[in-house]
Amino acid sequence: MKQSFYFQLPDWLVNTLDGISSGPLNDQAQMRLAIKLSQTNTEQGGGPFAALVVNRADNIIVAAGVNLVTSRNLSCAHAEMVAISMAQQNLDCYRLSDKGDFQLVSSCEPCAMCFGAIPWSGVSRVLCGAGKADAEAVGFDEGPKPQDWEAALEHRGIEVVTGLLRIEAAQVLASYADSRGEVY
Amino acid sequence: MKQSFYFQLPDWLVNTLDGISSGPLNDQAQMRLAIKLSQTNTEQGGGPFAALVVNRADNIIVAAGVNLVTSRNLSCAHAEMVAISMAQQNLDCYRLSDKGDFQLVSSCEPCAMCFGAIPWSGVSRVLCGAGKADAEAVGFDEGPKPQDWEAALEHRGIEVVTGLLRIEAAQVLASYADSRGEVY
Repeated sequence: MKQSFYFQLPDWLVNTLDGISSGPLNDQAQMRLAIKLSQTNTEQGGGPFAALVVNRADNIIVAAGVNLVTSRNLSCAHAEMVAISMAQQNLDCYRLSDKGDFQLVSSCEPCAMCFGAIPWSGVSRVLCGAGKADAEAVGFDEGPKPQDWEAALEHRGIEVVTGLLRIEAAQVLASYADSRGEVY
Repeated sequence: MKQSFYFQLPDWLVNTLDGISSGPLNDQAQMRLAIKLSQTNTEQGGGPFAALVVNRADNIIVAAGVNLVTSRNLSCAHAEMVAISMAQQNLDCYRLSDKGDFQLVSSCEPCAMCFGAIPWSGVSRVLCGAGKADAEAVGFDEGPKPQDWEAALEHRGIEVVTGLLRIEAAQVLASYADSRGEVY
């Protein structure tokens, strides 16, 4: 029985981040990058989802994640979970709010698992591109998430912005489905 | 920026599993082990939660997890998430149902995140010890989980058993709170 694993971001993602992590990006530019990463992830054989964790004080990216479910054999490795985990590893802290003010930028609204993970992560704001309807329209399952999920996060002091660059984000999902990628 | 991490189970957990993983355990014995692991995890400085993934065909444990949030600086490292991830690593598969019939045995009912992770994991049955009321009574937050969470899982074909050895499981939570462990 294995008792450990080594988890690594794909080289292409590391290289992309090296190229852009030097300067600040505003909300729209952050989402545009997340959407670009979601597109590239599909070209590299992954799922059409990507996320960033960004320091709200200076708009600098502290971590990124893409959907690595199939390539890493981990059903928990959704883009948001990867980005949150990498941010916590980078900041040596399991609650990001202890280290400052951070936002999660996701190319698609969270599934039931990622929704539940957000309050534990310590982010204070969430930006979403594509919506549940866009994901479900191409066969993805968002899971048993409460209907009032945005209100549930706001109630916990987490600001939620949905539909940022939604059309561009949804286009990546639609293209993925058209190319008959694995939907799970 | 770090782009990878190495994730390892604690030595004491590996040693405990080595001692017992040779024979089959029934539901009660599985839960008794999960409760024992949750207790030991508190003695080792972790949170009072543990979980197992067990092959239902032969009742053999395929993976275990304990709450490693504070020791690994990962808010996602709840016991259930660790057990599910280790099972998937051991079986080289992100959907356990592709490899057989598996159950998740948790010393406490799942929080909102772990609840959302269960449908993606591929387990067909969930056994829980302590309940939400037991966890909340000592200060733990179960997160924004739907009230009808058991029905939501049953609706997806996942059998749910709650309250198995609840008193013993809840006692570990209460002892942890009494000893003023970190509650998060």
